[in-house]
Parts: sequence; C-alpha cells; structure tokens
Amino acid sequence: MPKKIRLGILGGGGDSLIGVLHRVAAYINDNYEIVGAVFSPLHRDSLDFAEQIDIPLHRIYKDFETLIEKELQLPEDERIQVCSVQTPNFLHYPMAKKLLDNGFHVICEKPMTMTYEEAKSLQASHKASGKVFALTHTYTGYPMVRQMRQIIKAGQLGKIHKIDARYYQGWINPIIHDEEKRAAVWRLDPTKAGISSCMGDIGVHAFNLLEFTTGLKVKSLLCDFNYMYKDNVMDVDGTVLVRMDDHVKGVIRASQVATGEENGLAIRIYGEKGGFVWEQEKPNFLYFFEEGKPLQVYKPGHPYNTKLSLDGTKLPPGHPEGIFDSMANIYWGAAKAIRGEAYDDGEFPTMEDGVRGMNFIESTVHSHKQGNVWIDMD
Amino acid sequence: MPKKIRLGILGGGGDSLIGVLHRVAAYINDNYEIVGAVFSPLHRDSLDFAEQIDIPLHRIYKDFETLIEKELQLPEDERIQVCSVQTPNFLHYPMAKKLLDNGFHVICEKPMTMTYEEAKSLQASHKASGKVFALTHTYTGYPMVRQMRQIIKAGQLGKIHKIDARYYQGWINPIIHDEEKRAAVWRLDPTKAGISSCMGDIGVHAFNLLEFTTGLKVKSLLCDFNYMYKDNVMDVDGTVLVRMDDHVKGVIRASQVATGEENGLAIRIYGEKGGFVWEQEKPNFLYFFEEGKPLQVYKPGHPYNTKLSLDGTKLPPGHPEGIFDSMANIYWGAAKAIRGEAYDDGEFPTMEDGVRGMNFIESTVHSHKQGNVWIDMD
Amino acid sequence: MPKKIRLGILGGGGDSLIGVLHRVAAYINDNYEIVGAVFSPLHRDSLDFAEQIDIPLHRIYKDFETLIEKELQLPEDERIQVCSVQTPNFLHYPMAKKLLDNGFHVICEKPMTMTYEEAKSLQASHKASGKVFALTHTYTGYPMVRQMRQIIKAGQLGKIHKIDARYYQGWINPIIHDEEKRAAVWRLDPTKAGISSCMGDIGVHAFNLLEFTTGLKVKSLLCDFNYMYKDNVMDVDGTVLVRMDDHVKGVIRASQVATGEENGLAIRIYGEKGGFVWEQEKPNFLYFFEEGKPLQVYKPGHPYNTKLSLDGTKLPPGHPEGIFDSMANIYWGAAKAIRGEAYDDGEFPTMEDGVRGMNFIESTVHSHKQGNVWIDMD
Amino acid sequence: MPKKIRLGILGGGGDSLIGVLHRVAAYINDNYEIVGAVFSPLHRDSLDFAEQIDIPLHRIYKDFETLIEKELQLPEDERIQVCSVQTPNFLHYPMAKKLLDNGFHVICEKPMTMTYEEAKSLQASHKASGKVFALTHTYTGYPMVRQMRQIIKAGQLGKIHKIDARYYQGWINPIIHDEEKRAAVWRLDPTKAGISSCMGDIGVHAFNLLEFTTGLKVKSLLCDFNYMYKDNVMDVDGTVLVRMDDHVKGVIRASQVATGEENGLAIRIYGEKGGFVWEQEKPNFLYFFEEGKPLQVYKPGHPYNTKLSLDGTKLPPGHPEGIFDSMANIYWGAAKAIRGEAYDDGEFPTMEDGVRGMNFIESTVHSHKQGNVWIDMD
Repeated sequence: MPKKIRLGILGGGGDSLIGVLHRVAAYINDNYEIVGAVFSPLHRDSLDFAEQIDIPLHRIYKDFETLIEKELQLPEDERIQVCSVQTPNFLHYPMAKKLLDNGFHVICEKPMTMTYEEAKSLQASHKASGKVFALTHTYTGYPMVRQMRQIIKAGQLGKIHKIDARYYQGWINPIIHDEEKRAAVWRLDPTKAGISSCMGDIGVHAFNLLEFTTGLKVKSLLCDFNYMYKDNVMDVDGTVLVRMDDHVKGVIRASQVATGEENGLAIRIYGEKGGFVWEQEKPNFLYFFEEGKPLQVYKPGHPYNTKLSLDGTKLPPGHPEGIFDSMANIYWGAAKAIRGEAYDDGEFPTMEDGVRGMNFIESTVHSHKQGNVWIDMD
Repeated sequence: MPKKIRLGILGGGGDSLIGVLHRVAAYINDNYEIVGAVFSPLHRDSLDFAEQIDIPLHRIYKDFETLIEKELQLPEDERIQVCSVQTPNFLHYPMAKKLLDNGFHVICEKPMTMTYEEAKSLQASHKASGKVFALTHTYTGYPMVRQMRQIIKAGQLGKIHKIDARYYQGWINPIIHDEEKRAAVWRLDPTKAGISSCMGDIGVHAFNLLEFTTGLKVKSLLCDFNYMYKDNVMDVDGTVLVRMDDHVKGVIRASQVATGEENGLAIRIYGEKGGFVWEQEKPNFLYFFEEGKPLQVYKPGHPYNTKLSLDGTKLPPGHPEGIFDSMANIYWGAAKAIRGEAYDDGEFPTMEDGVRGMNFIESTVHSHKQGNVWIDMD
Repeated sequence: MPKKIRLGILGGGGDSLIGVLHRVAAYINDNYEIVGAVFSPLHRDSLDFAEQIDIPLHRIYKDFETLIEKELQLPEDERIQVCSVQTPNFLHYPMAKKLLDNGFHVICEKPMTMTYEEAKSLQASHKASGKVFALTHTYTGYPMVRQMRQIIKAGQLGKIHKIDARYYQGWINPIIHDEEKRAAVWRLDPTKAGISSCMGDIGVHAFNLLEFTTGLKVKSLLCDFNYMYKDNVMDVDGTVLVRMDDHVKGVIRASQVATGEENGLAIRIYGEKGGFVWEQEKPNFLYFFEEGKPLQVYKPGHPYNTKLSLDGTKLPPGHPEGIFDSMANIYWGAAKAIRGEAYDDGEFPTMEDGVRGMNFIESTVHSHKQGNVWIDMD
Repeated sequence: MPKKIRLGILGGGGDSLIGVLHRVAAYINDNYEIVGAVFSPLHRDSLDFAEQIDIPLHRIYKDFETLIEKELQLPEDERIQVCSVQTPNFLHYPMAKKLLDNGFHVICEKPMTMTYEEAKSLQASHKASGKVFALTHTYTGYPMVRQMRQIIKAGQLGKIHKIDARYYQGWINPIIHDEEKRAAVWRLDPTKAGISSCMGDIGVHAFNLLEFTTGLKVKSLLCDFNYMYKDNVMDVDGTVLVRMDDHVKGVIRASQVATGEENGLAIRIYGEKGGFVWEQEKPNFLYFFEEGKPLQVYKPGHPYNTKLSLDGTKLPPGHPEGIFDSMANIYWGAAKAIRGEAYDDGEFPTMEDGVRGMNFIESTVHSHKQGNVWIDMD
C-alpha cells in the first residue's frame, strides 16, 4: 500500500461535531494524514485548534484561497492531495469547485451545494477535472446498508414494488415553537440555510438511501411541507410521495418536530420475493423478509454477507461498529479512488448522488409551493 | 351484575377466523351467551356448526329474516338482545339497519357499510332506534392503545403536531402478481368487495386508530394508490397525506404488497411535549418519548396506567394478553352500554367511527381518481 | 365433535386471577361448559360469584366433599366429567387424589402438591384411576414453545449442549424488605406455603420448560438460595446448576427480588447445530440460531411451523395471541384426552411433569440446606 | 492540551484484530502518536506492517528487549512514553513488568497475566514504578456501562441484591466437537493458553463488568465447568455462583459453545429501588427499571446522563458509537493519567482490576477441580 494520502481540512475546527467525525474517519484505516487546514474563519482559532489536536502549524492557512495558492507552490509529492470540505453549507460549492478546478480531489459534506444550478455547475467542473469527488452521505457506509444494496442488485428481492424511507428528529422543537427563537435562528433563515430546512438537511439523506440501496431513480414526486407557523417560511416537516422506474411507488417522510426522536433514519423496501427493514439507530441489524420463511436478521462480519458489506467491517460478529466506522468506510473507498486502486461501485457516494440530491430538494420545494403537485425530476 | 346478555350471531361459521375472534371475545368476560344464530348461508351448515360448538339448535335459523321474525315473537326477556354481524361486507348495512329498525342492539364488523351513503343512512336508523351500536375496530381495545388515548386527552403530549400511521401486509402478493388469479379473486372485484381493497380493508383501521388515539379529526386528504398492474382496478397499496384540526399534518400508509409483513399496524404521534410509538404486533409495549428524558416503555396492568387502560387488562403485568383480549374489551364495553350501565367514552368504537371510516375510504378513492388532489372530509 | 365437556371448578372465585385464566381458557375453544363449582370457602361467596358470572346455582356446592358426593349421585351423562383445581397449594393434593379415586378427570394448577411424597402418592392414584390428569404449566401451551420442542425432537439442533432458563420477578420486594410484612405474609410461612417460595412458585416453571422443550431430564443439581434476611427462612432467589443426560449442563435462575421484572421467564438452548432463545413476555417471537446463517425469527401461524405449534394458533400470523390462548391450548389437549380422541405428546403437561417438579423443588431445598451439594434427582 | 503522547506498540501486526482496535482507539481522540513498535515476532514482518500503515521505520525494533534498550537511550522528550501490549497472553506479564521497571507507562490487554502469582508480582512492580497502568477491559468504556456505574454509585438503585452477568459465544463449536482439532489447537492447550479457556478469555470480562458497575467485590465463588469431552482439559463453558459484600448473591455464566451467539456479554443488576439490564451487542440502550414506574431506556449523549457517561460520547444522541469508541474512551482516560491531568475513577480499568481478574480465574478453576466447592477470593 502506498504512503498515507495527504489530507487538507476545511472547517471542522473548535467543537464542531462533524469535524470529529471526519477526522476520526480519516484516521481509522490508516489511509490519511492531515497535513494542512483552515479549521475556522479566524486564523488564530485555526492555529489553536491545530495545536490542540497536535497537527503541525506551518500549513494551517489563514483562509481557503491561501491554502490553494500555497499548496500549489509545493512539490506535487508534498502537496495536499485531497481536501475535506466540512464548512457551513453555502461554502461547499465555491470551495469544492475551486479545489477541483485546481486539481485537488474533494471529499465534501452534504448538502453538496445550495442550489440545483450550483450542483450542475460543480458536476461540470468535476467532469473536466478528472479528480475524485466523494460526498459524505455517511449512512451509505454502514455494512448492513451495503448488504441491502448488494442483495437487491443480485436480484434476491425480485422486482421492487414499494419503498418507504423515514428520517425523524425532534431537535427543532425548542426553537420552532418559540416565536423569538424561530425568527432569529440561521437554520430557519432561507438566505443563510438554503431553500429547505427539513428536506435539505435530513430528507435528502432518506432520498439518497432509497436510491443507493435500490438502484432505482425517483422519476417524479409530490410533496407536502409543514411550516407549523405562519411567520415561518422553512419546512420543519414534510412528506413526499415518490414514483420510480417501472411504476414503483414510495414515500419519504422527514421531520424535525418528531418529539423525542433522535436520529431516526429508517428504510423499508419490499420486492416481489422479499423485503428489508433497516434502522440507523440499530445499524448492525438488518431484517430480511422472504415469502413463507422466518424473518432473517443479518448482522455484519459473517461470511454470508456480500463482499462490499464485509469490506466495511473490521472486527468479528458481535463487536458493534458505529457511525465513525461507517464514515471511515467512505473515506476508505475515496482513498482507493484517489490512489487509483480498484474499488467497487457503492464504496462512496459520488457527484451524481449530490446532483440528484439537489434536484430532489428543489423539486420538493416546487411541489409544495405549487400546491402539492407532481414534479418530474431530471 | 345482571344475567348474561342474549347474543345472536350472523356469519362467522365454518372455519371463519373472524367467527372465532368474536365468539371468544363474547365469552371472555362472562357477559354474553349465544342463544341464536345464522352462521352460514346454508341452514344445514349453520346447524352443523352449532352442533360442533355445542349451541342449542332450536334458534339456529335458516336466514337472517327468519331470525328477526321469530325472535320478535319471543318474550322480551328471552329474545336476542344484540346481534353480532360478521358476514361479508355487503351484508353489514342491510343487516345492521334492519336489526336497529327492529329494536336490536348491534355489534358490527368493519367496514361498516359498502358506501358512505349507506353509512349515513345507517347512522339515521341508529339515531332513531336509541339502541347500542358497536363497531369492532379491534385494535382500539388494546390496553396500550387506550393508554395513548387517555394520556393525549389529559394533555400530556401538549398540542399534537404530527401523526404517522402505517398498516402494511404482504398477503396479496401471491394473487396480485398472477394475471389469472388477480382477475378471478373477489377481493379485487369492485362489484363484490367495494370501491377499495387496501384502504377499505386495512387503511381504514389506521385512520380509525389515528382519530381514536388523538381525538383529532382529519379535515382533508390527498391520496395516491398503487394498482401495480393496468388490468387491476383495485388499490393494493396507498399513501394518504392528511391534515387535521389546527394545521396538524400526518400521513397514513397502507399496503398489501409489503412482502413479508404480517399485520403491521403501527402509529407514531408527536406533540409539543412528547411522543408515542406503538406497534400492533408487540401490543403490550407502548413507547413514550418526553423532551429531555429517557424513553419510557409503558406496559399493561401497572397502577401508573389510566383507568381505561387498566379496565382492559385481566392479569398482572408480564402476562401477555393479545388480540382476543382486545376484542373482548370492546365486547365488554358494548355489554355495559346494552345493560345501561355507565361506561367510558372509548370503551368501544361507535357509529360515528363507522361513518368517518366510510367517508375516509371514499375520499381516498376520489382523491386518487381525480389526480391526487386534496379532498375535504365532511 | 361431541357435546361440551362438563367441567367443575374448585377455587378461582372472587377476584382470583387464576380463576379468570382457567375459565376463559375453558371457554376459548368451545370444549367445556361449567356445570358445577365450589368457588370459595364460604358457600355464600360461591353462590354470589356464580350469580355474577351467570352459572346455574343448583350445582354450586358448599364444599368439595359435597360436590363429590352429590355429583356421584347424578347419572353419568349429567355428572361433572373433569374438575379444575385452582385452590391454594395445600389443597391440590387431597382434592386431586379424591377426584381421581372417584373417577373424575382432573386439571390441576401447579405446584401439583406440597411434597414429593404427595406427588408420588397422587401418581399412584392416577395410575390406578385410568383418568386424565393435566397439570397447568401454562407456558407450555404457547405455539412457539411447542415449536421449540418439536424442532428439537426432530433433531434440528443436534445434540443439546447447554441450557439456561431464567424466571425473574420483582413482586416480593415490598414485602421482603419490611421486617413486619415478611413475618406476617403466608407466602413466606413454610407451614402454609410449602418448603420453597421462589423455587416452588416460579423456578419449577423454568425447570418444566427446560425438560418440556429439550426432552432431556435433569439428573442432578446444586442449588444456592438467597433468603435476604436472617429472620426469613423461605428462598426469594436462587440459582441451580443442573446436569442432564449425556453430560449436558445448564443453569436455572429464579428470583422474586429482581426489581422491576414482571414475569421474566426465558430460556436459551444451545445444541451442536443450532440454538433457541425465547422470552415469555414476547411469546410470539422465537429466535433460532444456526451455524453460519442469519438469525431466524419464527412467528406463530406460518406453514413453516410444526403441526403441534400450528394447532395452538387460531388466527393468521401477526395477530398476537397471549397467555389466555396458551392456557386454552392446554385445556384443548386435555379435552381431546378426556373425550378419548387422539392427541399429541406435548399437548398438555402430565402427572409425570408434576412428579418431576416436586422432585426438583425438594432437591433444590436439600442441596441448599446441605451446603450447596449435588443432589441426584430420581 | 499538550502534544500527542508518544506510543509504542507491542504485537498487533499483520491482520491482528486486536491490533486494529487498539490503533484506532489511540487515534480517535487525537491523544497519541505511534512512534515505535515491535508488531510481529519477525522483524521483517514488523517493518512490512509499519510500511503498510505508514509508520516511520527507524523505531520499528527487532524485538521487545531492543525496543526498551534503544528507547532508553533517546532523550526523554523523544522517548516512547507508553507501550500498548497486544501480544499473546503469556507475554503480557514479562513485557508489562519490564516496561514498568524501566519507567514506561503501560496499556495492557487482558488477561493481564497467566497466573495470579504473576498478577501480584506485576502489581508490586507497578506500585514501585509510580507509572500509569491501564488494562483494556474494553467494555467498561461504553457510555452506558459508565452510566450504570455512576447511577449505582449515586445510590439510585439502593442496596444491590442480585447480579447476573452472562458472556456467551459459540465460536469454539467447530473446534471442540472435532477430536483432531481440539487436540491440536493452542487455545485448548493449557501450557500455551493458561489454566482456563472460557473463564479466562470471556468469563473474566463478565466478572470485571460486575465489579466495575456495582462497586461490589466478589467474596467467594463456586464454579462448575463443562469440558464437553473427556480428552479435553480446558473449560469451554462454566457457571459461577458468587457472593459479594453484604450477602448479595449473583451468578456469572460464560460459554464458548453457545451456538449462534456472537459476543453475548450482558448484565442484569437488581437493587432495592431499581434495576439495570444492558447488552453489549446493543450497547447504546440501557434499560432502567424503577419500582412502580415505566421501564426507562437511557441512551448516550443526553444531558440526563452522568458526566462520566457524557465524556465518553462524541456525537449527539442517535449517532451510534461502537466498540472502537469504547476502547478509545479507555485510551483517553489513560492519556489524562499519563499527562498528569485530572481524571475520574472509572475512566480506565486499573492494575487492581487485573489482579482481581486473575484471582477470579484461578478461583473458578480451584472450585471446579475441588468438586464445586466454595472458594474465598482474597
């Protein structure tokens, strides 16, 4: 195996939760070394954070532009190879674009961009660049999610009929029901957070999981949002009717006002010969229904799993791996691609996932605003 | 307690599953004695069945009309007091109507009638009769369903925001995917089964559970059915967006093609202060979320439960009661009403539930056929 | 099917919980009619109760002896055929013995007798009588318990290696920790409750479940009780090491001080080729492990179940049946035996189960009192 | 925060599973940098592995003795500060001892030594050294295990009455039932694997969990092993009756022949006021029983958790962390101790845990071999 990949970090400093997740994921399989970063908007904060986590300071730059400029001056075998973009959403697009345009690989948080237009523009840059772009839809890295995908791909469910994805959280409750708070928070300000709160932040994960696992594409959708209050213009809850290839129908449900729910992502997939149920909060249990047979519970690490699933497990069965390990699997897939090694389709979400996601988010908003009508996706 | 109530049975003979359910429910709390019946269309079959379950034969009538006629000739203190209607759906309305019109109390299976019109007509007869009418939405009799209702009524969830009900089964798969079978089966023949398969048979249970537990009424709905095949005109899957009082939104999901699902009725209710999750296949576990507290799991029989819930439990905690016991609770509530004893709102589903249910079913069909538009319920 | 069996009830009046359980179980499959009883020690109470549940009063006797005497005077085709003994423990033996000696069939609550000596004496009476004797180890009637038994019998687990049964409750806590209460309660008074509290009341169920499901016999055991307080002489907690045929080892754990536990009976059985886990509080889920395969979850009512299991289920999969239905299965098995019909081994626990149970209870007491030594069972 | 701690690794090379676990745990919280190692017995293998995971090669030593010798020649601020011992069991003692004697901190896999004598000898070296010694009983690092400990410490369960720990695996089945294999495998050869297989490998984890969570000490025990075959002299299954402070009783069950079990460590703790149930394979769910209240389910990351628990969680509720994160918490605790920072009792298992563990293992063997008699622990 070649040397560790030289990784740059954008964002993720201070007590950023997403920062920890990415950093640990990068370490887990011994593939990456952090060599440069802009952790925070203030250079002083970036340096402090670098010191705190004990990263050499000389490549902690004052801003993103400087990072690009200075790194390009380094010899290619010292230069950052890939940057991980963990900044607030509105910076994903300009940063990822400039990185690709300047020959860097990119690992990027979701939502990929602020708009579908930006997504398509980024796609063009990516195509032109020939570089690796990985989108961190974390949940696709779970061994049991990978197992669903591969089993469906192998035809064991037969033709899919029905899909039902849910992503319920309750965290926005203390904000949304307080008139002052909901007016003040950036999350509910479309100029800062984009056109959608609930669908943009979590609904898109459910959408991605649905397309990732089934290999089907949503063709059209009809969406109903709930804003809860007249003075609020961002969705905090929504249900989306979806239609896919071959007259398959489904529903995507997302909520940020589902009181008491933590991170309730779940999916149910039913096909001619079998069905799957999987829940993110118990990620190592995959429920597999087959006509006329007892329910089967798949767990990671067993030889009966597919290669893609087994590749995502480090320890023997019964040793629970979690969300850090899931993200680490995505980082590993990206590492293979960056090194030019062979990798399987499905090892990490791609630019196409990002473009589909933005297409989905905008379509839900259009559907709702036009009176819950059917919108065709591209 | 007065003597046992004299019960007549219509339908439920032979190996009818619903027949067993009702008969046992009637026995369980020592409230009823079966004194007369028309178990089957053929008199010989009715007599054989009566013999088999050891019911006296002299009041086993050849048909429903004879039962009415002969029973009315008996002295009032010998006469059947209440009839339980367990026949195929299209007979519910004419039987229930004639029974009420002739002064009998009625316990009736769902769907109450074939059409909303019939439902309203039956409601009028019921009003005129002054008799008891109980609709056997079995699932409302579970102690934990009753617990949800009472806790919500007491305001412990605060204002409700979001409701999500599901009823998934997979039993129609072997029929629907076979062109010959799906053309031949009465279940998918609208002249025999009514205007809806999936929504009429199971979706309406989910709808009823939603209104029963929250006390809210669905004001309007938008529905998308899946027929699966062009030559099939009955829904075998559907999703319904619903809007209730006070801008509450929700979704009702029903499917008969959810491969591997058995009897997957479940409900999630989220309010300002808390949330509930309940699943029919584990009926004795009620999950209660409160902001900032550990998840709580309610179980039947504990003193912390409400009276309505405790009334529905016969044994101490940890002794699982099931669906027969749930139905028995409804029979018990009806018994109290028939005897003129005090009973609580919620002890059994009523005529109003039946009318609402038929309104719901028809509205979903209209919504779908008109192109997934919003339909107001009455 | 012949007429209903004429059933007499001994005990179970007033608000007796066990009374409800037996009565409903007798009704559920249309096999029995209650024709006579001594519900309570006071004749007045028996009559009141009979009136309350609407049983004819003329065969409600003042005491057990009168019941025997008067019933024997009735013609055989009117006479009580079987008596169900639901009295306090110390009456089981004299009643069951006299019933058998006088030609009545007997259904009897557990523990069958107060001592092992009594058990052997009753066994002799039973043998001499040629009558049916059914012991209501209720849990053996669950479809999934029956499934375990039949699958093991068919050899699908291979040679059994290890068995682990648990029965944990917490109900005695409020009594045992209060010096006055624990001195006053009859449950902890050996002159009234027999030689063992915890092992006699619940441990014996776990023991029975172990022998019932595996078909193995415990050959020797070593027991350690916990009395909690020096002034208490009855076990409220105990663990039993057991050795069975063929060097199989296991453990039986029972407790009445397991705070918060309701009725926590569970069993784990491991064999050469597979394993089972079953928990009474979720009786319709049976977990089946096979080497190198996903965990399988059996549920009742599916055609993949064995005949004995399917016979114990009335409704299609997904309609939860519970403990009343489990007891009803035992009553049904006894009914077949009483009518002289064919029935399968395992349809109801027998005299042998009762004798084994008393042998077990006494052996645990001897083992503990002799300093936790190994005791051979007969 | 100071610079990363300089970590040396002993063992854990190649495809060692425990190697991955430790390495990732060391990385996760940015506390450690691997600067030297002897990964494998052959120097070539060590170097290859170092290259593979991209560790500088100049401090990859040919053997342990050389590592000690050479590192001692380095200036103190470059020298390895702590070594993590991940070798086969028989090397733990000599390595840990020499490390402590030469002024290195030690992180050590369990079982700590081969014998109780060695354990006491190591304890003496540790005491003399003044260095940090952390034993990697991984499961103590789970947030919900920490939560149990702290809640019990705070008295919320009242006086503990009853403890029941289980550790069931099935992995040895393919070996033990094959006469040739069981004769050949080092795991069942006492000269290589120590005096106990099942109790030494996994039973000791259950024992440790029991003492760690309750703060109680086992005073005496009685053990029964199962060897399965006469030609096998190592336990592959065992049950241990234990007695603790204040007449508390409990049971520890361990098995390697529990077919189908993966890594089934679980604990049940019952006290005067409440009880806990926790299962390793669902580590983020802690079941808390309180008298007269609904069951409560604690999950990590919520403010209602204790500080020790919250310190062990990196992400918000609903983002499952797993066994790598659990081990990382232990490494973090050790890091604080190594840096001389404040840390809480319970952040990592200590020398005392190791000594207790070896005392436990030897006592179980003595008890069994002397005929299942009570053995006092020191």
